[in-house]
Amino acid sequence: MFLFTEFHNKSVGLTIKPKNVYSIFTKYQKLTFLETEDFGKVLVLDDLVQLTERDEFIYHEMISHVAINTFPRKIEKVLIIGGGDGGTAREVLKYDFIKEIHLVEIDKEVIEIAKKHMPFTAKAFEDKRLKVFIEDGRNFVRNTQNKYDVVLVDCSDPIGPSKVLFEKDFYQDCFKILKEDGIFVTQSESPFYSLDIIKDIIKNLKISFPIVKLYTANIPTYPAGYWSFTLASKVYDPLKVDMEKLKDNIKRKDLKYYNEEIHFSSFALPSYVKERLKEVLS
Amino acid sequence: MFLFTEFHNKSVGLTIKPKNVYSIFTKYQKLTFLETEDFGKVLVLDDLVQLTERDEFIYHEMISHVAINTFPRKIEKVLIIGGGDGGTAREVLKYDFIKEIHLVEIDKEVIEIAKKHMPFTAKAFEDKRLKVFIEDGRNFVRNTQNKYDVVLVDCSDPIGPSKVLFEKDFYQDCFKILKEDGIFVTQSESPFYSLDIIKDIIKNLKISFPIVKLYTANIPTYPAGYWSFTLASKVYDPLKVDMEKLKDNIKRKDLKYYNEEIHFSSFALPSYVKERLKEVLS
Repeated sequence: MFLFTEFHNKSVGLTIKPKNVYSIFTKYQKLTFLETEDFGKVLVLDDLVQLTERDEFIYHEMISHVAINTFPRKIEKVLIIGGGDGGTAREVLKYDFIKEIHLVEIDKEVIEIAKKHMPFTAKAFEDKRLKVFIEDGRNFVRNTQNKYDVVLVDCSDPIGPSKVLFEKDFYQDCFKILKEDGIFVTQSESPFYSLDIIKDIIKNLKISFPIVKLYTANIPTYPAGYWSFTLASKVYDPLKVDMEKLKDNIKRKDLKYYNEEIHFSSFALPSYVKERLKEVLS
Repeated sequence: MFLFTEFHNKSVGLTIKPKNVYSIFTKYQKLTFLETEDFGKVLVLDDLVQLTERDEFIYHEMISHVAINTFPRKIEKVLIIGGGDGGTAREVLKYDFIKEIHLVEIDKEVIEIAKKHMPFTAKAFEDKRLKVFIEDGRNFVRNTQNKYDVVLVDCSDPIGPSKVLFEKDFYQDCFKILKEDGIFVTQSESPFYSLDIIKDIIKNLKISFPIVKLYTANIPTYPAGYWSFTLASKVYDPLKVDMEKLKDNIKRKDLKYYNEEIHFSSFALPSYVKERLKEVLS
Protein backbone atom coordinates (compact mmCIF):
# COMPACT_ATOMS: atom_id res chain seq x y z
CA MET A 1 0.00 0.00 0.00
CA PHE A 2 1.32 3.41 -1.02
CA LEU A 3 0.81 6.24 1.49
CA PHE A 4 1.68 9.90 0.94
CA THR A 5 2.16 12.05 4.05
CA GLU A 6 2.69 15.80 4.04
CA PHE A 7 4.06 16.73 7.45
CA HIS A 8 3.08 20.24 8.53
CA ASN A 9 5.64 20.25 11.34
CA LYS A 10 7.61 17.61 13.21
CA SER A 11 4.51 15.92 14.69
CA VAL A 12 1.43 16.23 12.52
CA GLY A 13 0.61 15.77 8.85
CA LEU A 14 -2.00 14.89 6.26
CA THR A 15 -1.92 11.36 4.89
CA ILE A 16 -3.39 10.40 1.53
CA LYS A 17 -3.93 6.84 0.36
CA PRO A 18 -3.95 7.01 -3.45
CA LYS A 19 -5.21 4.42 -5.90
CA ASN A 20 -2.74 5.65 -8.51
CA VAL A 21 0.38 7.78 -8.43
CA TYR A 22 2.09 9.60 -11.29
CA SER A 23 5.16 11.74 -10.70
CA ILE A 24 7.47 13.81 -12.95
CA PHE A 25 10.14 16.45 -12.54
CA THR A 26 9.37 19.59 -14.54
CA LYS A 27 11.90 22.35 -15.14
CA TYR A 28 10.75 24.03 -11.92
CA GLN A 29 9.42 21.44 -9.50
CA LYS A 30 8.41 17.89 -8.72
CA LEU A 31 4.87 17.38 -9.93
CA THR A 32 2.88 14.48 -8.50
CA PHE A 33 -0.59 13.51 -9.47
CA LEU A 34 -2.61 11.19 -7.22
CA GLU A 35 -5.95 9.53 -7.82
CA THR A 36 -7.96 8.80 -4.68
CA GLU A 37 -11.28 7.23 -3.82
CA ASP A 38 -12.80 10.00 -1.69
CA PHE A 39 -10.98 13.15 -2.81
CA GLY A 40 -10.80 12.39 -6.53
CA LYS A 41 -7.74 13.74 -8.25
CA VAL A 42 -4.99 15.41 -6.22
CA LEU A 43 -2.24 17.70 -7.52
CA VAL A 44 0.96 17.77 -5.45
CA LEU A 45 3.90 20.12 -6.15
CA ASP A 46 7.24 19.55 -4.41
CA ASP A 47 5.45 17.16 -2.04
CA LEU A 48 2.89 19.77 -0.96
CA VAL A 49 -0.80 19.25 -1.75
CA GLN A 50 -2.02 22.00 -4.08
CA LEU A 51 -5.55 20.89 -4.73
CA THR A 52 -7.92 17.98 -4.49
CA GLU A 53 -10.95 17.52 -6.70
CA ARG A 54 -13.22 17.38 -3.65
CA ASP A 55 -12.28 20.58 -1.84
CA GLU A 56 -10.60 22.81 -4.47
CA PHE A 57 -13.82 24.81 -4.80
CA ILE A 58 -13.19 26.41 -1.41
CA TYR A 59 -9.77 27.81 -2.22
CA HIS A 60 -10.73 28.92 -5.73
CA GLU A 61 -13.98 30.60 -4.68
CA MET A 62 -12.37 32.37 -1.75
CA ILE A 63 -9.35 33.72 -3.64
CA SER A 64 -11.58 35.30 -6.32
CA HIS A 65 -15.10 36.26 -5.22
CA VAL A 66 -14.20 38.37 -2.19
CA ALA A 67 -12.22 40.87 -4.30
CA ILE A 68 -14.65 40.95 -7.22
CA ASN A 69 -17.60 41.62 -4.89
CA THR A 70 -15.79 44.38 -3.03
CA PHE A 71 -16.12 46.65 -6.09
CA PRO A 72 -19.22 48.83 -6.30
CA ARG A 73 -18.67 48.85 -10.07
CA LYS A 74 -18.42 46.11 -12.68
CA ILE A 75 -14.80 45.22 -13.35
CA GLU A 76 -13.32 44.16 -16.68
CA LYS A 77 -9.75 42.96 -16.42
CA VAL A 78 -8.16 40.48 -14.04
CA LEU A 79 -4.57 39.24 -13.74
CA ILE A 80 -3.89 35.83 -12.18
CA ILE A 81 -0.30 35.03 -11.18
CA GLY A 82 0.12 31.26 -10.99
CA GLY A 83 -3.12 29.31 -10.99
CA GLY A 84 -1.99 26.94 -13.74
CA ASP A 85 -4.68 24.41 -12.82
CA GLY A 86 -7.34 26.86 -14.05
CA GLY A 87 -9.52 26.85 -10.92
CA THR A 88 -9.16 30.52 -10.07
CA ALA A 89 -9.81 31.53 -13.68
CA ARG A 90 -12.93 29.31 -13.68
CA GLU A 91 -14.34 31.33 -10.77
CA VAL A 92 -13.45 34.73 -12.27
CA LEU A 93 -15.04 33.71 -15.58
CA LYS A 94 -18.40 33.29 -13.82
CA TYR A 95 -18.92 37.06 -14.11
CA ASP A 96 -20.13 37.96 -17.60
CA PHE A 97 -18.97 41.54 -17.20
CA ILE A 98 -15.31 40.44 -16.90
CA LYS A 99 -13.93 40.82 -20.43
CA GLU A 100 -10.32 39.71 -20.12
CA ILE A 101 -8.24 37.51 -17.83
CA HIS A 102 -4.48 37.23 -18.10
CA LEU A 103 -3.03 34.14 -16.42
CA VAL A 104 0.74 34.02 -15.94
CA GLU A 105 2.04 30.55 -15.09
CA ILE A 106 5.77 29.85 -14.93
CA ASP A 107 5.46 26.09 -15.39
CA LYS A 108 3.69 25.05 -18.57
CA GLU A 109 3.60 21.43 -17.45
CA VAL A 110 1.15 22.33 -14.66
CA ILE A 111 -1.28 23.58 -17.32
CA GLU A 112 -0.68 20.51 -19.47
CA ILE A 113 -1.33 18.10 -16.59
CA ALA A 114 -4.45 20.07 -15.65
CA LYS A 115 -5.80 19.97 -19.20
CA LYS A 116 -5.16 16.24 -19.38
CA HIS A 117 -6.37 15.15 -15.95
CA MET A 118 -8.35 17.93 -14.27
CA PRO A 119 -11.15 19.13 -16.55
CA PHE A 120 -13.01 20.35 -13.45
CA THR A 121 -10.56 23.26 -13.18
CA ALA A 122 -8.93 23.27 -16.64
CA LYS A 123 -12.22 23.84 -18.44
CA ALA A 124 -11.43 27.52 -17.85
CA PHE A 125 -8.81 27.35 -20.63
CA GLU A 126 -11.56 26.86 -23.22
CA ASP A 127 -12.93 30.35 -22.59
CA LYS A 128 -11.74 32.94 -25.12
CA ARG A 129 -11.62 35.67 -22.46
CA LEU A 130 -8.68 33.86 -20.81
CA LYS A 131 -5.20 34.54 -22.21
CA VAL A 132 -2.30 32.43 -20.92
CA PHE A 133 1.31 33.64 -20.61
CA ILE A 134 3.95 31.01 -19.87
CA GLU A 135 6.28 33.31 -18.05
CA ASP A 136 7.76 34.23 -14.69
CA GLY A 137 5.01 36.15 -12.85
CA ARG A 138 7.61 38.35 -11.16
CA ASN A 139 8.91 39.56 -14.56
CA PHE A 140 5.47 39.88 -16.08
CA VAL A 141 4.35 42.25 -13.35
CA ARG A 142 7.56 44.26 -13.66
CA ASN A 143 7.24 44.70 -17.42
CA THR A 144 3.59 44.78 -18.39
CA GLN A 145 1.99 47.99 -19.66
CA ASN A 146 -1.50 46.71 -18.85
CA LYS A 147 -3.69 48.05 -16.08
CA TYR A 148 -5.87 45.61 -14.14
CA ASP A 149 -8.87 45.92 -11.87
CA VAL A 150 -7.81 42.90 -9.85
CA VAL A 151 -4.55 40.99 -9.34
CA LEU A 152 -4.85 37.52 -7.78
CA VAL A 153 -1.72 35.70 -6.64
CA ASP A 154 -2.56 32.00 -6.73
CA CYS A 155 0.86 30.60 -5.96
CA SER A 156 2.50 27.83 -3.97
CA ASP A 157 4.29 28.31 -0.63
CA PRO A 158 7.03 30.95 -0.26
CA ILE A 159 9.76 28.43 -0.98
CA GLY A 160 10.86 27.37 -4.47
CA PRO A 161 9.55 29.22 -7.54
CA SER A 162 6.97 31.25 -5.57
CA LYS A 163 9.38 32.90 -3.10
CA VAL A 164 9.63 36.17 -5.07
CA LEU A 165 5.85 36.50 -5.03
CA PHE A 166 5.95 37.30 -1.32
CA GLU A 167 8.42 40.19 -1.52
CA LYS A 168 7.96 43.91 -1.03
CA ASP A 169 9.09 44.91 -4.53
CA PHE A 170 6.65 42.51 -6.14
CA TYR A 171 3.80 44.02 -4.14
CA GLN A 172 4.85 47.52 -5.20
CA ASP A 173 4.84 46.48 -8.85
CA CYS A 174 1.37 44.97 -8.37
CA PHE A 175 0.21 48.29 -6.95
CA LYS A 176 1.50 50.05 -10.08
CA ILE A 177 -0.28 47.79 -12.58
CA LEU A 178 -3.61 48.10 -10.76
CA LYS A 179 -6.14 50.74 -11.81
CA GLU A 180 -6.63 53.58 -9.35
CA ASP A 181 -9.30 51.69 -7.41
CA GLY A 182 -7.77 48.24 -7.93
CA ILE A 183 -7.68 45.29 -5.52
CA PHE A 184 -4.93 42.73 -4.91
CA VAL A 185 -5.38 39.33 -3.25
CA THR A 186 -2.71 36.76 -2.44
CA GLN A 187 -3.06 33.37 -0.82
CA SER A 188 -1.23 33.81 2.48
CA GLU A 189 -0.64 30.44 4.15
CA SER A 190 -2.13 28.90 7.29
CA PRO A 191 -2.86 31.21 10.23
CA PHE A 192 -2.33 28.26 12.57
CA TYR A 193 1.22 27.60 11.39
CA SER A 194 2.54 30.65 9.57
CA LEU A 195 1.72 33.84 11.43
CA ASP A 196 5.25 35.18 10.95
CA ILE A 197 4.93 34.87 7.19
CA ILE A 198 1.45 36.44 7.31
CA LYS A 199 2.76 39.31 9.39
CA ASP A 200 5.43 40.04 6.76
CA ILE A 201 2.91 39.84 3.92
CA ILE A 202 0.63 42.37 5.62
CA LYS A 203 3.51 44.65 6.57
CA ASN A 204 4.90 44.62 3.04
CA LEU A 205 1.50 45.26 1.43
CA LYS A 206 0.83 48.15 3.79
CA ILE A 207 3.79 50.03 2.31
CA SER A 208 1.75 50.57 -0.86
CA PHE A 209 -1.91 49.90 -0.08
CA PRO A 210 -4.06 51.93 2.35
CA ILE A 211 -6.46 49.03 3.11
CA VAL A 212 -4.99 45.60 3.94
CA LYS A 213 -7.10 42.84 5.50
CA LEU A 214 -6.69 39.16 6.25
CA TYR A 215 -9.51 36.68 5.68
CA THR A 216 -9.69 32.94 6.13
CA ALA A 217 -11.42 29.79 4.96
CA ASN A 218 -11.63 26.16 6.00
CA ILE A 219 -9.76 24.10 3.40
CA PRO A 220 -9.68 20.50 4.67
CA THR A 221 -6.58 19.31 2.80
CA TYR A 222 -4.39 22.34 3.58
CA PRO A 223 -2.26 22.55 6.76
CA ALA A 224 -4.50 22.81 9.85
CA GLY A 225 -7.54 22.85 7.54
CA TYR A 226 -7.29 26.60 7.93
CA TRP A 227 -6.06 28.92 5.23
CA SER A 228 -5.70 32.66 4.80
CA PHE A 229 -5.83 35.23 2.03
CA THR A 230 -4.64 38.82 2.24
CA LEU A 231 -6.62 41.48 0.41
CA ALA A 232 -5.01 44.85 -0.33
CA SER A 233 -7.15 47.62 -1.74
CA LYS A 234 -6.55 51.14 -3.02
CA VAL A 235 -10.04 52.47 -2.27
CA TYR A 236 -12.77 49.98 -1.38
CA ASP A 237 -13.14 48.29 2.00
CA PRO A 238 -14.38 44.68 1.70
CA LEU A 239 -16.34 45.11 4.94
CA LYS A 240 -18.24 48.15 3.64
CA VAL A 241 -20.08 46.28 0.94
CA ASP A 242 -23.87 46.28 0.76
CA MET A 243 -24.95 42.76 1.71
CA GLU A 244 -28.14 42.74 -0.34
CA LYS A 245 -26.33 43.94 -3.44
CA LEU A 246 -23.64 41.31 -2.91
CA LYS A 247 -26.30 38.60 -2.58
CA ASP A 248 -27.78 39.75 -5.86
CA ASN A 249 -24.37 39.81 -7.62
CA ILE A 250 -23.65 36.16 -6.84
CA LYS A 251 -27.04 34.70 -7.72
CA ARG A 252 -26.79 31.70 -10.04
CA LYS A 253 -23.00 31.66 -9.85
CA ASP A 254 -23.00 28.02 -8.68
CA LEU A 255 -21.02 28.79 -5.53
CA LYS A 256 -20.50 26.01 -3.02
CA TYR A 257 -18.62 27.86 -0.26
CA TYR A 258 -18.75 31.65 -0.72
CA ASN A 259 -21.96 33.52 0.07
CA GLU A 260 -22.91 36.94 1.40
CA GLU A 261 -22.48 35.88 5.04
CA ILE A 262 -19.13 34.19 4.42
CA HIS A 263 -17.92 37.38 2.67
CA PHE A 264 -18.10 39.21 5.99
CA SER A 265 -17.50 36.41 8.50
CA SER A 266 -14.29 35.30 6.78
CA PHE A 267 -12.64 38.50 8.06
CA ALA A 268 -13.36 37.63 11.71
CA LEU A 269 -10.14 36.32 13.22
CA PRO A 270 -9.57 34.15 16.29
CA SER A 271 -7.90 35.89 19.22
CA TYR A 272 -4.60 34.00 18.81
CA VAL A 273 -4.37 35.38 15.27
CA LYS A 274 -5.37 38.93 16.22
CA GLU A 275 -2.90 38.93 19.08
CA ARG A 276 0.07 37.89 16.93
CA LEU A 277 -0.87 40.35 14.17
CA LYS A 278 -1.90 43.29 16.28
CA GLU A 279 1.03 45.52 15.28
CA VAL A 280 0.31 45.15 11.58
CA LEU A 281 -3.50 44.92 11.65
CA SER A 282 -4.20 48.12 13.57
CA MET B 1 9.44 5.07 13.89
CA PHE B 2 5.90 4.85 15.26
CA LEU B 3 3.20 6.64 13.25
CA PHE B 4 -0.46 6.99 14.23
CA THR B 5 -2.94 7.72 11.43
CA GLU B 6 -6.63 8.48 11.92
CA PHE B 7 -8.30 8.02 8.56
CA HIS B 8 -11.33 10.29 8.10
CA ASN B 9 -12.52 8.31 5.09
CA LYS B 10 -10.95 5.85 2.64
CA SER B 11 -8.43 8.36 1.26
CA VAL B 12 -7.41 11.01 3.76
CA GLY B 13 -6.33 11.10 7.39
CA LEU B 14 -4.34 12.86 10.08
CA THR B 15 -0.94 11.40 10.91
CA ILE B 16 0.80 11.97 14.22
CA LYS B 17 4.43 11.10 14.91
CA PRO B 18 4.66 10.62 18.69
CA LYS B 19 7.74 10.57 20.85
CA ASN B 20 5.99 8.31 23.36
CA VAL B 21 2.90 6.15 23.27
CA TYR B 22 0.89 4.75 26.17
CA SER B 23 -2.26 2.71 25.61
CA ILE B 24 -4.75 0.92 27.88
CA PHE B 25 -8.18 -0.61 27.60
CA THR B 26 -10.63 0.88 30.09
CA LYS B 27 -14.03 -0.64 30.81
CA TYR B 28 -15.51 1.46 27.99
CA GLN B 29 -12.88 2.17 25.40
CA LYS B 30 -9.29 2.03 24.21
CA LEU B 31 -7.45 4.99 25.67
CA THR B 32 -4.20 6.07 24.05
CA PHE B 33 -1.98 8.84 25.22
CA LEU B 34 0.68 10.25 22.88
CA GLU B 35 3.46 12.72 23.55
CA THR B 36 4.53 14.80 20.56
CA GLU B 37 7.07 17.47 19.81
CA ASP B 38 4.83 20.14 18.27
CA PHE B 39 1.38 19.34 19.63
CA GLY B 40 2.38 18.38 23.16
CA LYS B 41 0.21 15.73 24.76
CA VAL B 42 -2.51 14.03 22.73
CA LEU B 43 -5.48 12.05 24.06
CA VAL B 44 -6.90 9.41 21.72
CA LEU B 45 -10.05 7.37 22.45
CA ASP B 46 -10.87 4.31 20.31
CA ASP B 47 -8.22 5.52 17.83
CA LEU B 48 -9.88 8.93 17.41
CA VAL B 49 -8.01 12.08 18.45
CA GLN B 50 -9.91 13.80 21.28
CA LEU B 51 -7.56 16.61 22.10
CA THR B 52 -4.03 17.88 21.70
CA GLU B 53 -2.32 20.24 24.09
CA ARG B 54 -1.69 22.73 21.30
CA ASP B 55 -5.17 23.19 19.88
CA GLU B 56 -7.58 22.00 22.62
CA PHE B 57 -8.28 25.61 23.55
CA ILE B 58 -10.31 26.07 20.38
CA TYR B 59 -12.75 23.23 21.04
CA HIS B 60 -13.10 24.00 24.75
CA GLU B 61 -13.61 27.73 24.29
CA MET B 62 -16.11 27.26 21.50
CA ILE B 63 -18.26 24.64 23.26
CA SER B 64 -18.67 26.86 26.34
CA HIS B 65 -18.44 30.60 25.76
CA VAL B 66 -21.01 30.91 22.98
CA ALA B 67 -23.83 29.62 25.21
CA ILE B 68 -22.76 31.49 28.35
CA ASN B 69 -22.57 34.78 26.44
CA THR B 70 -25.96 34.31 24.83
CA PHE B 71 -27.66 34.93 28.21
CA PRO B 72 -28.56 38.52 29.02
CA ARG B 73 -28.40 37.48 32.69
CA LYS B 74 -25.67 35.95 34.84
CA ILE B 75 -26.07 32.19 35.01
CA GLU B 76 -25.26 29.97 37.98
CA LYS B 77 -25.44 26.28 37.21
CA VAL B 78 -23.93 24.30 34.35
CA LEU B 79 -24.06 20.60 33.49
CA ILE B 80 -21.30 19.02 31.42
CA ILE B 81 -21.92 15.57 29.96
CA GLY B 82 -18.57 13.94 29.19
CA GLY B 83 -15.62 16.30 29.23
CA GLY B 84 -13.53 14.05 31.48
CA ASP B 85 -10.33 15.83 30.48
CA GLY B 86 -11.54 18.94 32.32
CA GLY B 87 -11.07 21.41 29.44
CA THR B 88 -14.70 22.45 29.10
CA ALA B 89 -15.04 22.88 32.87
CA ARG B 90 -11.89 25.02 32.85
CA GLU B 91 -13.56 27.44 30.43
CA VAL B 92 -16.88 27.56 32.30
CA LEU B 93 -15.04 28.21 35.57
CA LYS B 94 -13.63 31.44 34.11
CA TYR B 95 -16.92 33.17 34.99
CA ASP B 96 -16.99 34.08 38.67
CA PHE B 97 -20.78 34.27 38.68
CA ILE B 98 -21.08 30.55 37.86
CA LYS B 99 -21.56 28.87 41.24
CA GLU B 100 -21.84 25.19 40.42
CA ILE B 101 -20.76 22.83 37.65
CA HIS B 102 -21.79 19.20 37.50
CA LEU B 103 -19.60 17.05 35.27
CA VAL B 104 -20.85 13.57 34.40
CA GLU B 105 -18.18 11.30 32.94
CA ILE B 106 -18.86 7.63 32.30
CA ASP B 107 -15.20 6.59 32.25
CA LYS B 108 -13.29 7.43 35.43
CA GLU B 109 -10.00 6.45 33.81
CA VAL B 110 -10.26 9.43 31.42
CA ILE B 111 -10.30 11.74 34.45
CA GLU B 112 -7.43 9.84 36.07
CA ILE B 113 -5.27 10.05 32.94
CA ALA B 114 -6.08 13.75 32.62
CA LYS B 115 -5.16 14.45 36.24
CA LYS B 116 -1.90 12.58 35.80
CA HIS B 117 -0.80 13.83 32.39
CA MET B 118 -2.85 16.85 31.35
CA PRO B 119 -2.75 19.53 34.03
CA PHE B 120 -3.54 22.13 31.35
CA THR B 121 -7.14 20.85 31.26
CA ALA B 122 -7.37 18.85 34.49
CA LYS B 123 -6.56 21.84 36.69
CA ALA B 124 -10.34 22.44 36.56
CA PHE B 125 -10.82 19.53 39.01
CA GLU B 126 -9.14 21.55 41.76
CA ASP B 127 -11.96 24.10 41.77
CA LYS B 128 -14.54 23.48 44.51
CA ARG B 129 -17.38 24.68 42.28
CA LEU B 130 -16.89 21.59 40.11
CA LYS B 131 -18.61 18.37 41.22
CA VAL B 132 -17.81 15.16 39.36
CA PHE B 133 -20.23 12.25 38.88
CA ILE B 134 -18.80 9.01 37.52
CA GLU B 135 -21.94 7.87 35.82
CA ASP B 136 -23.65 7.29 32.50
CA GLY B 137 -24.66 10.75 31.23
CA ARG B 138 -27.78 9.32 29.63
CA ASN B 139 -29.03 8.02 33.01
CA PHE B 140 -27.97 11.12 34.91
CA VAL B 141 -30.05 13.35 32.66
CA ARG B 142 -33.02 10.99 32.94
CA ASN B 143 -32.96 10.90 36.74
CA THR B 144 -31.63 14.19 38.08
CA GLN B 145 -33.95 16.56 39.94
CA ASN B 146 -31.59 19.50 39.32
CA LYS B 147 -32.34 22.39 37.00
CA TYR B 148 -29.50 23.89 34.97
CA ASP B 149 -28.95 27.12 33.07
CA VAL B 150 -26.72 25.40 30.54
CA VAL B 151 -26.15 21.78 29.44
CA LEU B 152 -22.98 21.13 27.43
CA VAL B 153 -22.48 17.76 25.73
CA ASP B 154 -18.75 17.29 25.37
CA CYS B 155 -18.71 13.74 24.06
CA SER B 156 -16.93 11.57 21.55
CA ASP B 157 -18.35 10.54 18.16
CA PRO B 158 -21.81 8.95 17.88
CA ILE B 159 -20.36 5.46 17.94
CA GLY B 160 -19.38 3.59 21.12
CA PRO B 161 -20.36 4.97 24.53
CA SER B 162 -21.53 8.34 23.16
CA LYS B 163 -24.15 6.99 20.75
CA VAL B 164 -27.09 7.59 23.11
CA LEU B 165 -26.06 11.23 23.51
CA PHE B 166 -27.23 11.97 19.95
CA GLU B 167 -30.77 10.59 20.32
CA LYS B 168 -34.13 12.33 20.42
CA ASP B 169 -35.08 11.11 23.90
CA PHE B 170 -31.83 12.34 25.38
CA TYR B 171 -32.42 15.80 23.91
CA GLN B 172 -35.96 15.84 25.36
CA ASP B 173 -34.60 14.97 28.80
CA CYS B 174 -32.03 17.76 28.47
CA PHE B 175 -34.85 20.17 27.66
CA LYS B 176 -36.64 19.11 30.87
CA ILE B 177 -33.66 19.64 33.17
CA LEU B 178 -32.95 23.11 31.75
CA LYS B 179 -34.41 26.19 33.43
CA GLU B 180 -37.12 27.97 31.47
CA ASP B 181 -34.61 30.09 29.55
CA GLY B 182 -31.89 27.43 29.41
CA ILE B 183 -29.42 26.71 26.61
CA PHE B 184 -28.08 23.38 25.36
CA VAL B 185 -24.92 22.87 23.27
CA THR B 186 -23.56 19.66 21.83
CA GLN B 187 -20.45 19.07 19.80
CA SER B 188 -21.82 17.98 16.43
CA GLU B 189 -19.06 16.55 14.25
CA SER B 190 -17.41 17.87 11.07
CA PRO B 191 -19.60 19.76 8.59
CA PHE B 192 -17.28 18.60 5.81
CA TYR B 193 -17.80 14.90 6.53
CA SER B 194 -20.93 14.44 8.62
CA LEU B 195 -23.79 16.55 7.33
CA ASP B 196 -26.23 13.64 7.64
CA ILE B 197 -25.45 13.30 11.35
CA ILE B 198 -25.70 17.08 11.80
CA LYS B 199 -29.05 17.12 10.03
CA ASP B 200 -30.40 14.52 12.45
CA ILE B 201 -29.05 16.39 15.48
CA ILE B 202 -30.77 19.60 14.39
CA LYS B 203 -34.00 17.82 13.49
CA ASN B 204 -34.10 16.01 16.84
CA LEU B 205 -33.33 19.15 18.85
CA LYS B 206 -36.03 21.09 17.00
CA ILE B 207 -38.67 18.76 18.44
CA SER B 208 -38.13 20.38 21.85
CA PHE B 209 -36.30 23.67 21.34
CA PRO B 210 -37.66 26.71 19.46
CA ILE B 211 -34.20 28.07 18.52
CA VAL B 212 -31.61 25.67 17.08
CA LYS B 213 -28.45 26.93 15.35
CA LEU B 214 -25.26 25.42 14.03
CA TYR B 215 -21.90 27.13 14.51
CA THR B 216 -18.39 26.10 13.55
CA ALA B 217 -14.73 26.48 14.43
CA ASN B 218 -11.40 25.58 12.91
CA ILE B 219 -9.87 22.78 14.98
CA PRO B 220 -6.67 21.68 13.20
CA THR B 221 -6.49 18.12 14.58
CA TYR B 222 -10.14 17.21 14.01
CA PRO B 223 -11.41 15.77 10.70
CA ALA B 224 -11.17 18.38 7.91
CA GLY B 225 -9.91 20.88 10.51
CA TYR B 226 -13.52 21.99 10.63
CA TRP B 227 -15.85 21.22 13.50
CA SER B 228 -19.41 22.09 14.43
CA PHE B 229 -21.48 22.68 17.53
CA THR B 230 -25.26 22.81 17.74
CA LEU B 231 -26.86 25.28 20.11
CA ALA B 232 -30.49 24.82 21.17
CA SER B 233 -32.17 27.54 23.17
CA LYS B 234 -35.52 27.99 24.87
CA VAL B 235 -35.62 31.80 24.69
CA TYR B 236 -32.41 33.62 23.72
CA ASP B 237 -31.04 33.87 20.18
CA PRO B 238 -27.21 33.78 20.08
CA LEU B 239 -27.25 36.22 17.15
CA LYS B 240 -29.27 38.82 19.06
CA VAL B 241 -26.62 39.50 21.64
CA ASP B 242 -25.25 43.01 22.19
CA MET B 243 -21.69 42.95 20.85
CA GLU B 244 -20.35 45.63 23.20
CA LYS B 245 -21.79 43.89 26.25
CA LEU B 246 -20.33 40.59 25.07
CA LYS B 247 -16.93 42.20 24.61
CA ASP B 248 -17.13 43.49 28.15
CA ASN B 249 -18.21 40.08 29.55
CA ILE B 250 -15.14 38.32 28.20
CA LYS B 251 -12.51 40.84 29.19
CA ARG B 252 -9.58 39.27 31.02
CA LYS B 253 -10.89 35.75 30.44
CA ASP B 254 -7.62 34.68 28.76
CA LEU B 255 -9.36 33.56 25.58
CA LYS B 256 -7.21 32.50 22.66
CA TYR B 257 -9.88 31.77 20.02
CA TYR B 258 -13.32 33.09 21.03
CA ASN B 259 -13.98 36.82 20.83
CA GLU B 260 -16.97 39.07 20.12
CA GLU B 261 -16.51 38.82 16.34
CA ILE B 262 -16.05 35.05 16.37
CA HIS B 263 -19.27 34.75 18.43
CA PHE B 264 -21.24 36.01 15.43
CA SER B 265 -19.09 34.88 12.51
CA SER B 266 -19.03 31.26 13.72
CA PHE B 267 -22.72 30.99 12.75
CA ALA B 268 -22.02 31.90 9.10
CA LEU B 269 -22.08 28.68 7.12
CA PRO B 270 -20.57 27.85 3.71
CA SER B 271 -23.08 27.31 0.92
CA TYR B 272 -22.44 23.56 0.73
CA VAL B 273 -23.45 23.28 4.40
CA LYS B 274 -26.49 25.55 4.06
CA GLU B 275 -27.67 23.66 0.99
CA ARG B 276 -27.54 20.24 2.66
CA LEU B 277 -29.20 21.54 5.85
CA LYS B 278 -31.80 23.81 4.29
CA GLU B 279 -34.79 21.68 5.29
CA VAL B 280 -33.82 21.70 8.96
CA LEU B 281 -32.27 25.17 9.23
CA SER B 282 -35.18 27.19 7.86
